[in-house]
Amino acid sequence: MQFKLITTDNHARLGQIHTTRGTINTPAFMPVGTNATVKAMDPDEMKELGAEVLLSNTYHLYLRPGHEVIKEVGGLHRFMKWDGPILTDSGGFQVFSLSPLRKISDEGVTFRSHLDGSLHFLTPELVMEIQGALGADIAMVFDECTPYPATREYALKSLKLTTEWAKRCLEAKNENQALFGIVQGGVYKDLRKQSAEELIEMDFDGYALGGLSVGEPKELMYEMVNYTTPLLPVDRPRYLMGIGDLLDVLEAVSAGIDMFDCVMPTRNARNGTLFTSRGRISIKREEFKKDPGPLDPDCSCYTCRNYSRAYLRHMFMSREILSMRLNTMHNLQFYMEFFRRLREAISSGRFEQFRKEQTPVLKNNFHEG
Amino acid sequence: MQFKLITTDNHARLGQIHTTRGTINTPAFMPVGTNATVKAMDPDEMKELGAEVLLSNTYHLYLRPGHEVIKEVGGLHRFMKWDGPILTDSGGFQVFSLSPLRKISDEGVTFRSHLDGSLHFLTPELVMEIQGALGADIAMVFDECTPYPATREYALKSLKLTTEWAKRCLEAKNENQALFGIVQGGVYKDLRKQSAEELIEMDFDGYALGGLSVGEPKELMYEMVNYTTPLLPVDRPRYLMGIGDLLDVLEAVSAGIDMFDCVMPTRNARNGTLFTSRGRISIKREEFKKDPGPLDPDCSCYTCRNYSRAYLRHMFMSREILSMRLNTMHNLQFYMEFFRRLREAISSGRFEQFRKEQTPVLKNNFHEG
Repeated sequence: MQFKLITTDNHARLGQIHTTRGTINTPAFMPVGTNATVKAMDPDEMKELGAEVLLSNTYHLYLRPGHEVIKEVGGLHRFMKWDGPILTDSGGFQVFSLSPLRKISDEGVTFRSHLDGSLHFLTPELVMEIQGALGADIAMVFDECTPYPATREYALKSLKLTTEWAKRCLEAKNENQALFGIVQGGVYKDLRKQSAEELIEMDFDGYALGGLSVGEPKELMYEMVNYTTPLLPVDRPRYLMGIGDLLDVLEAVSAGIDMFDCVMPTRNARNGTLFTSRGRISIKREEFKKDPGPLDPDCSCYTCRNYSRAYLRHMFMSREILSMRLNTMHNLQFYMEFFRRLREAISSGRFEQFRKEQTPVLKNNFHEG
Repeated sequence: MQFKLITTDNHARLGQIHTTRGTINTPAFMPVGTNATVKAMDPDEMKELGAEVLLSNTYHLYLRPGHEVIKEVGGLHRFMKWDGPILTDSGGFQVFSLSPLRKISDEGVTFRSHLDGSLHFLTPELVMEIQGALGADIAMVFDECTPYPATREYALKSLKLTTEWAKRCLEAKNENQALFGIVQGGVYKDLRKQSAEELIEMDFDGYALGGLSVGEPKELMYEMVNYTTPLLPVDRPRYLMGIGDLLDVLEAVSAGIDMFDCVMPTRNARNGTLFTSRGRISIKREEFKKDPGPLDPDCSCYTCRNYSRAYLRHMFMSREILSMRLNTMHNLQFYMEFFRRLREAISSGRFEQFRKEQTPVLKNNFHEG
């Protein structure tokens, strides 16, 4: 994996991550394919939407169907029929957010499966083995996701553990697989700095900010991103994990972040909340019942080219599978197009202008009439 | 609408139904798009699968979103983005099978919506108005679906009502819309004959057999089909409503039936039961966990070209939407291909041979190893 910084616009960066499976233009949005599928989509559709990289979840695939199953049938790319780059997270966040029990020791984490309650023990070495078996192009180190709120003492202990585990992951690094470190430190600037410095010394292929958007006020999250990002090496990609509200994306890009992932476009789609050039729409609203127009007249996606709001509302109210497909297609198109325009803006030195134009749209809840 | 009988092989018939929206080769299978979508599919996929006609449900669309909504946004074809022929049923069967209450009078049927319990009153005239608003290419008369078991007395009264309603439907017939009569009569041959004769006298564009596969033994169903079908006019299409088990299809085609509809391929797909050239497979079986091979090596569908049984099992176990898509795609391809080969067999006078070859496959539950 190679990162090339093409240009900057203040702190905002335009770049490219070159992998053997293709180039990722940054700032990049990584659609989430938790269970080896982006929910409701097929991989050809993801290609058409312009997705250049997918994220898949180590925790979920370890539990079901098992990384050894996927390895045996030829790896994750072949399994899910996606030949572009894949980034796998390390499971640290899922153990933290999904497991009904977790017990952390220096060695690793004991947790219960959210699927069947079975007991599991994840270590940095096992997490690297899993990501190797999956055959991800970019792997993440196993980290402890520091909760919010956490005392300074806890956050320090937690970041030290993450540093130790990062070392062990580096020792267990797989060939032909990039590995990113994850900066922790809670909402304590000096701890974020300490974490960043310890990881930078280990020389990872890229650096992520973890443990954000876990309950802290948004201003605190922004403060951490703005403080920590400039501490990271200029020549490595920077990834803000799990964040994808587009207002947050604009803030983070302005701080120099290059990569994002989030279930927001896909999950919202399934719940009937759709992003448009005039604001968010809840497709179930009565006002759309007989609306013959497209969801978003400014959108060129399959959904907007072919269907009326009346049909989309009917599909949603009838809980039809096609509703999830059409809505997901549209929201992903909106995200992909947003990132394309974001990159164009940086390229031509208009990032701040783009941000100013987009902010009111992103804040708006759109109603007809 | 015009029907052209091309050739026969004993009683089995090869034909074509010409409509302004395209030709339907018979024997034809009509995939079911209850709520204005074939569940999990988009219309482009239906085209690629070779579907030449879809069936949609008057009862469902009347209740939600309402036929007036669909009319206002340009009719059912435009609404669901399907430009091929559409047949709508009359709601008679759904009122019978889905409504928690129905009260039949000469005038019509009072029933409660299965969606919200609201009271509705359907008459032959209203049913024709609904099908006109939807803009179906082929409409069905409003009938009373005679239950099983029913006394001879009840079945006679029921068939007389259906005849009366058929007359009223004919009087309310929509322009540019074919209308089929529905033969009732329960499991009484003489009543089936009486119903057929009364309807034939009214000169419908086609004739359906209704009230079958409603609980009666299969032999009795076969007996009714074999007895009644030859009573129908040679120059009109014959449609066996709601039946689509392929063994039943073979029996009915041998009696001279031309059209079928059934949720079997789509519903089974969503439940993980898949049709293959070696028999039915339940994709959730443990034996497929690490199976790298295609679902059906003899199938050329998107699913079989791209995915392993291991992946299909994983999608199913994870309840992913893609599971329903890939499974539905495959089962519909199996049905479409089956009907193509069935027509070829009739065309070349090999129908009985085809039936003999297919019967053991259709009866088989396929296990690996």
